[in-house]
Amino acid sequence: MNELNQDGARALDAADPLYGLRDLFLLPSGVIYLDGNSLGPMPRATPGRVADVVQREWGQDLITSWNKAGWFASPQTMGDKIARLIGAGAGEVVATDSISINLYKLLHAAISIAEDSMDAATKSQKAVKTTKVIVSERDNFPTDLYIAQALCHDRGWTLKLCETTEIEEHLSAAPGIVMLTHVNYRTGAMHDMAGLTARAQAMGSLVVWDLAHSAGAVEVDLRGANADFAVGCGYKYLNGGPGSPAFLWVHPRHVERFSQPLSGWWGHAAPFAFTPDYAPAPGVARYLCGTQPIISMAALSCGLDTLLAAEALGGMAALRQKSLALTTLFANLVDARCAHKGITVVSPRVDAQRGSQVCLTRDSGDMAADSNFCYAVMQALIARGVIGDYRAGAPPIMRFGFAPLYIGFEDVWHAVAHLVDVLNSEEWREPRFNARGHVT
Amino acid sequence: MNELNQDGARALDAADPLYGLRDLFLLPSGVIYLDGNSLGPMPRATPGRVADVVQREWGQDLITSWNKAGWFASPQTMGDKIARLIGAGAGEVVATDSISINLYKLLHAAISIAEDSMDAATKSQKAVKTTKVIVSERDNFPTDLYIAQALCHDRGWTLKLCETTEIEEHLSAAPGIVMLTHVNYRTGAMHDMAGLTARAQAMGSLVVWDLAHSAGAVEVDLRGANADFAVGCGYKYLNGGPGSPAFLWVHPRHVERFSQPLSGWWGHAAPFAFTPDYAPAPGVARYLCGTQPIISMAALSCGLDTLLAAEALGGMAALRQKSLALTTLFANLVDARCAHKGITVVSPRVDAQRGSQVCLTRDSGDMAADSNFCYAVMQALIARGVIGDYRAGAPPIMRFGFAPLYIGFEDVWHAVAHLVDVLNSEEWREPRFNARGHVT
Repeated sequence: MNELNQDGARALDAADPLYGLRDLFLLPSGVIYLDGNSLGPMPRATPGRVADVVQREWGQDLITSWNKAGWFASPQTMGDKIARLIGAGAGEVVATDSISINLYKLLHAAISIAEDSMDAATKSQKAVKTTKVIVSERDNFPTDLYIAQALCHDRGWTLKLCETTEIEEHLSAAPGIVMLTHVNYRTGAMHDMAGLTARAQAMGSLVVWDLAHSAGAVEVDLRGANADFAVGCGYKYLNGGPGSPAFLWVHPRHVERFSQPLSGWWGHAAPFAFTPDYAPAPGVARYLCGTQPIISMAALSCGLDTLLAAEALGGMAALRQKSLALTTLFANLVDARCAHKGITVVSPRVDAQRGSQVCLTRDSGDMAADSNFCYAVMQALIARGVIGDYRAGAPPIMRFGFAPLYIGFEDVWHAVAHLVDVLNSEEWREPRFNARGHVT
Repeated sequence: MNELNQDGARALDAADPLYGLRDLFLLPSGVIYLDGNSLGPMPRATPGRVADVVQREWGQDLITSWNKAGWFASPQTMGDKIARLIGAGAGEVVATDSISINLYKLLHAAISIAEDSMDAATKSQKAVKTTKVIVSERDNFPTDLYIAQALCHDRGWTLKLCETTEIEEHLSAAPGIVMLTHVNYRTGAMHDMAGLTARAQAMGSLVVWDLAHSAGAVEVDLRGANADFAVGCGYKYLNGGPGSPAFLWVHPRHVERFSQPLSGWWGHAAPFAFTPDYAPAPGVARYLCGTQPIISMAALSCGLDTLLAAEALGGMAALRQKSLALTTLFANLVDARCAHKGITVVSPRVDAQRGSQVCLTRDSGDMAADSNFCYAVMQALIARGVIGDYRAGAPPIMRFGFAPLYIGFEDVWHAVAHLVDVLNSEEWREPRFNARGHVT
């Protein structure tokens, strides 16, 4: 596969039953968009749908659209679409707010449930092993850690950060709540959701999964993994548009055990009774808070439809197989054609340990120089229409996302060809690609 | 004024320098829209602006728009526009999330500040009078109460609900935090913000104002009133579209005293440093949490521009004067022409005590019958294109909002003429207007 030429890549596209799905998107001409892990591109249907919600549903039908156009029900309607992509049941997911806010709701509930279990264990004089600790990875997406920090402060818990290799050790040392992002935002490394969940629960922990980089990109089976809680976002692989509403899922065994503190009227059992006392709605609706951004919600609907269009072609399983083929091809081509320039693949090479992105770096021993190099190479690629992104850190990273809905094998071939050109020509040294100066 | 006929109303419109502002909106033909207090109508500029953010900023420019199109800065950009409407300074307001969520942030911070003051008073051995009590009105918009309930539960505070007439008594009996909605969502009754704030603060309380029914409708001067905190929403008088992002304001004397628990990355001092520890941003930016719904934010921008367009014509002061003239005319015409059917005005008649809406009821002594009557009359009006809304409760209410940007005096005359017709013809008795049966 690493000997593949452009004709071979084109043949793979020709044989790909998913290839036609790219027509669901309007991508800028001349662009190979490998940043759908940051912001998915615009589906072809979105401008028309958004214009309709603005001009007809709002402009003409005004307040009647809360019921007639399904605005009120949209968190549940979108939630049911998302459920099909992440192995959740109908009625178990709501689309609402942002990941950070949804994580706050879920962690708050998880803490209540964990403390409830501790109380029960104390009363029954069982040996209490569970601790008031949230375990997470140090390189988890920071907003998750910030939210956990705040809750730990308010509820008297401790946030324990560890390296990925230390997770298993902490599962037994500090059972409580484990909060993990399924696919790492920097490296693309993917956890074994079912295995980790089972081991964590066996030790007495609840498990909260962040699906930001996995929903719509890899197969997720929340029910199959027997997970406890999950959040995810709408604007990456779900193609919902900038700042699209996020989503959350709670396993039915937990969903009505506690309400959450962002107890706004949309989560009330009878929101239009306007009673002064809060009574949580049945099911996952109690995790709603205030009024949702309906125009952005309409765009999310179109994004979800692009993924659901793949259901007739094998759905997430087929998309995942294609994604693995794309990322494998990219990594192999980089190995074959860029290794002589010191470029190495950071993302895991084992399929089961990799999400839908491949990250590259250079390790020359001079971190500052390598950071500048990765930054400048990415700028040069973007100038050529190959759009990925740069992430500072150790190591510095060139990040490429491969969304199987709209990326093909020839795109991968072209992306690597551009990378080779940028490296061999040394055009990355041009001042315009180094404009931000020293990168730390 | 209550003797005014249609020609007189038309003459008032002809003499109104604000009349032309209605051209900033696209209203459905044949509609007199008196429900802008629930959902503002669509500004003429919105469809084009939304199409541009979707098709060019997202579709073509993709992730570059986070900086190039100002997406990241939009909470602050919108906040600065809102600040001009509510007597706040530039850099003091952010547009973000929903009212309920923003209220959670502010109440959490207010509780921290109040407890800090109590601790300081204890240490200095002063007589501590402040109590861990949030005082609010029983008929405040319920979501505000729900959020306060949850925080009181978590922080060991008490939510004390009282009647409007009892507020002053509670200011001295239980100083702590006072949470009030400036204009009541049902009755349109408006508090004296400056007076109440001063008296509450003199007793040792912090004051949180909900501006949902006042921002863009009445003059608000948060700095002049020396208020402590405020929230408001974008989809009512600010015409930002369904579920538009809300806003919040914190007085500069408080803003950096505490951070808030929804401590997501958008409120971090250096969101792109991706450090694992939270460090709150300077100023009001620390009240941001996660990624904002950018398409809905673009619609909010157009809504705000309709109000800012009035600045050259006297701004909120001129709009308020017109609003008072509209509501006074409506109430007087109802008195003159509908009193014989038992219709009475619920909203305060004193200008300084009334927001931009007028509510009607019937009190026949039979509450169930009156509820059915008010519901059916409103349905009959809506069928005629006069759109207000019905709110159950004691008393049951027909609610009419008068947004001076797009409602004129002849509209008021027509609305009352339709009401008179509905009452005199008894067409409200038609089954189609009573479809929901018994109203409680």
